[in-house]
Amino acid sequence: MPRGAQVIYPKDLAPICMLADIGPGDRVLESGVGSGALSMTMLRWGAEIVGYELREDFANRAVTNVRSFLGEDALSRYRVELRDCYEGIDETDVDRVVLDLPEPWRVVPHLAGALRPGGIFIAYTPSIVQAAQVRQSLGGSGWIMQRTLEVLHRTWHIEGAAVRPDHRMVAHTGFLTVARYIGR
Amino acid sequence: MPRGAQVIYPKDLAPICMLADIGPGDRVLESGVGSGALSMTMLRWGAEIVGYELREDFANRAVTNVRSFLGEDALSRYRVELRDCYEGIDETDVDRVVLDLPEPWRVVPHLAGALRPGGIFIAYTPSIVQAAQVRQSLGGSGWIMQRTLEVLHRTWHIEGAAVRPDHRMVAHTGFLTVARYIGR
Amino acid sequence: MPRGAQVIYPKDLAPICMLADIGPGDRVLESGVGSGALSMTMLRWGAEIVGYELREDFANRAVTNVRSFLGEDALSRYRVELRDCYEGIDETDVDRVVLDLPEPWRVVPHLAGALRPGGIFIAYTPSIVQAAQVRQSLGGSGWIMQRTLEVLHRTWHIEGAAVRPDHRMVAHTGFLTVARYIGR
Amino acid sequence: MPRGAQVIYPKDLAPICMLADIGPGDRVLESGVGSGALSMTMLRWGAEIVGYELREDFANRAVTNVRSFLGEDALSRYRVELRDCYEGIDETDVDRVVLDLPEPWRVVPHLAGALRPGGIFIAYTPSIVQAAQVRQSLGGSGWIMQRTLEVLHRTWHIEGAAVRPDHRMVAHTGFLTVARYIGR
Repeated sequence: MPRGAQVIYPKDLAPICMLADIGPGDRVLESGVGSGALSMTMLRWGAEIVGYELREDFANRAVTNVRSFLGEDALSRYRVELRDCYEGIDETDVDRVVLDLPEPWRVVPHLAGALRPGGIFIAYTPSIVQAAQVRQSLGGSGWIMQRTLEVLHRTWHIEGAAVRPDHRMVAHTGFLTVARYIGR
Repeated sequence: MPRGAQVIYPKDLAPICMLADIGPGDRVLESGVGSGALSMTMLRWGAEIVGYELREDFANRAVTNVRSFLGEDALSRYRVELRDCYEGIDETDVDRVVLDLPEPWRVVPHLAGALRPGGIFIAYTPSIVQAAQVRQSLGGSGWIMQRTLEVLHRTWHIEGAAVRPDHRMVAHTGFLTVARYIGR
Repeated sequence: MPRGAQVIYPKDLAPICMLADIGPGDRVLESGVGSGALSMTMLRWGAEIVGYELREDFANRAVTNVRSFLGEDALSRYRVELRDCYEGIDETDVDRVVLDLPEPWRVVPHLAGALRPGGIFIAYTPSIVQAAQVRQSLGGSGWIMQRTLEVLHRTWHIEGAAVRPDHRMVAHTGFLTVARYIGR
Repeated sequence: MPRGAQVIYPKDLAPICMLADIGPGDRVLESGVGSGALSMTMLRWGAEIVGYELREDFANRAVTNVRSFLGEDALSRYRVELRDCYEGIDETDVDRVVLDLPEPWRVVPHLAGALRPGGIFIAYTPSIVQAAQVRQSLGGSGWIMQRTLEVLHRTWHIEGAAVRPDHRMVAHTGFLTVARYIGR
C-alpha cells in the first residue's frame, strides 16, 4: 500500500501563510505539494500556485482535493507539474517559494532568477539539522531577515474550577525557516 | 496623550484567521477593531467586515490603516460603527464573530440571531480568567467544538555549530477561545 | 477499589526541592503525603519531615515506601500523622511548608506560628484557579518573593540526522506557588 | 578583564541532580566546575565530588564558594584538580559523571573504567548540535536509557483577575543529555 503524503498540520498552515506573507495575486512556487493541504490554504487566501511534485499520485490527489474543497474555479490558479525541484526551476520572478522537501537546501542555488528580489522563501523541515542546513545554504549575502522558528499550540482544559493546560500536547511538527531575497 | 490601541501580535493573527476559518466572502462581525491589525489580515484573506468600536480615534485610524495598506477598494468590504458591542448586535446571520474586548462574555447573549447556525465565534483575551468566563458563558448547549489555546513561537539562533533556541522569547500574548454555534 | 494517591511527577520533585530550598536538617511540614514520592525526595536530600495525611492507607504506604527505598534509618526523620491540615498545625517554627492539597489556601491562616519567619511555603496545584486562590490568600503583607510557575520538560528525539523534539510531550502536571514568610 | 565562568541556571541545577540521581554518598566526577554552582547543589544533597577544572581562577573560586555557602566541613567531600578532562580520568568506579564542557563527547571514550557499571552520565550543552554529538559518541551499546531534554520554567503573573503567563520568559539555557552505563 502506498504511503500517503505527510501532511502539514493546521497549526503550521496559517503561520506559513503569515510568514510568507501570502495574499491575493501572489505568485507562489510550492514543492512538494503532497496532499495539497498547504496549497488549499494559500489558494483560499488568494495565491496563484505552480506546484512541483515528484509523485504522480500525490499530484493527482492534490488537484482533486483543491477541486473538491475550493471548486473548479480555484484550478485556474493552480497547476501541478511532475518534476523534481532539486534539478531546477523554470518559473521566473515568482513572489514566494514554499518548500516542504527533505533537502530544501538543494533548491536554494536555483532561487536566483526564480524568486524576484524582495520575494520570500520558506522551508518546513521536521529536523533542526535540516533547518540548520537550509540556513547555511542561504549564507550571509543575498538573503535578509533570516529566521527559524517553531509554532506551538498549548490547549487548555476548562471545566468549572478545573482550569489547566491539557495534560498532553503536540510538542513538535516542524521548523519553519524564512528569509527574504534581496538579489545579488 | 491618548493611549494607542492594544495590538494583536502577528503570531496570533494568522491562527485567529485559521481557527475562525476566514475566507473569501465570509461576513465577519469584529469588535473592537483597535488599530485594525486583525481587520487588515481578515480583509486581505477575503472577509467582509462590520466593526463595532467604542472609540472614534481607534475607528478612524483602523479605516486609515486599511486604506493605506490594502487600498481604497478594500473599504467596500469594511465598515466601522461607533458603538458598544456589549449592548447588542444589529447584524444578523453573520458567518463569524471575532472579539478582542475586555469582557467578551457580555456579547455572548447577543449572538443568537447575530451569528448564523454553523458560524464560528472567537475571542482573544490576555487573562485565563477571562477565557474561563467566556467558556462559562457559552455553556453546554448551542455551542460545539469549544476550545481554548495559546499560540507560542519559539525562535532559534542558528550560527554555525551554535544551534539553539533564542535565550528569551515572547511567552504570552493572549488566549484564543473558539466555538462553533449550532443554534438553539 | 480505592483510588491510589495522585503522584507528583519526577519533573516536579526536584524543582519543588530547589524552590523550597530543601537541605540537610531542614524541618518540613508536608501535607498530604500521598504515596510518599515527594517525602522520599526531600528525605534523601536531608529534610526532617512531619507529614499530615487524612487517609490511613496513604500514610501507611508512604511510610512503607520510605522504609523500602531509603532504609529504616530514614524513618528517624519521618513521622506521618493522621490529621487534617485545614484544621490547624501543631508544629511550630518549621523551616518549610510543602502542600499537595486541593485547597491549600485553607492552610495559609494557620501558618503564622507554624512557619518560622524566613521560612518557605510551596503549594502544588493542578488548576491555575487554585494557584490564584493561594496567591490571594497570601495577600500583600507577611509574604515576599511570591511566584507561581510551571515546569516543562521537552524531550528530544536524536537519531542520526533526525534531531527534533519528540512529537508529543507531557504538557501539564501542576502549578508551583512559592513564597517566603517574613512574619507579621 | 577575565570572563567569569558561565553559570548553570537554578532551573537546571535541580533537574540535573534528579536525572543524575544524586544522593548521599554518591561519588561524582564533575568537569568543569566553573563557579561551583552545580558543585554546591550536589554537595548539599550529599555527593562526594572530584572536580576537574582547567582554569585555576575558576577552581579557586569554586572552592571558596563551597566554603562560604556550605561551610568548612563540606570541603571534606570536595576536591578540585587542575586538569583537562579531555585527556583522561584517573578516578575509577565513580557513581556519576557530570559534564559542563564545550565538547563532552571527547570525555566519553575515557568513561570505561572511570564510571562504574550502573552509573549515570549527564552532559549540559547550550547547542543541540553538541547534544547530538554526545548522543553519537555514546553509540548503541554500553549505554541505556539515553535521553536529551530541555527544562523550561513558565512563570505566571497573578494579580486579581489578571492571571496570565508572564509576557517574556527564559526560553533556553541548555540541553541535558543523560545515559546509564551498563559496561562493556
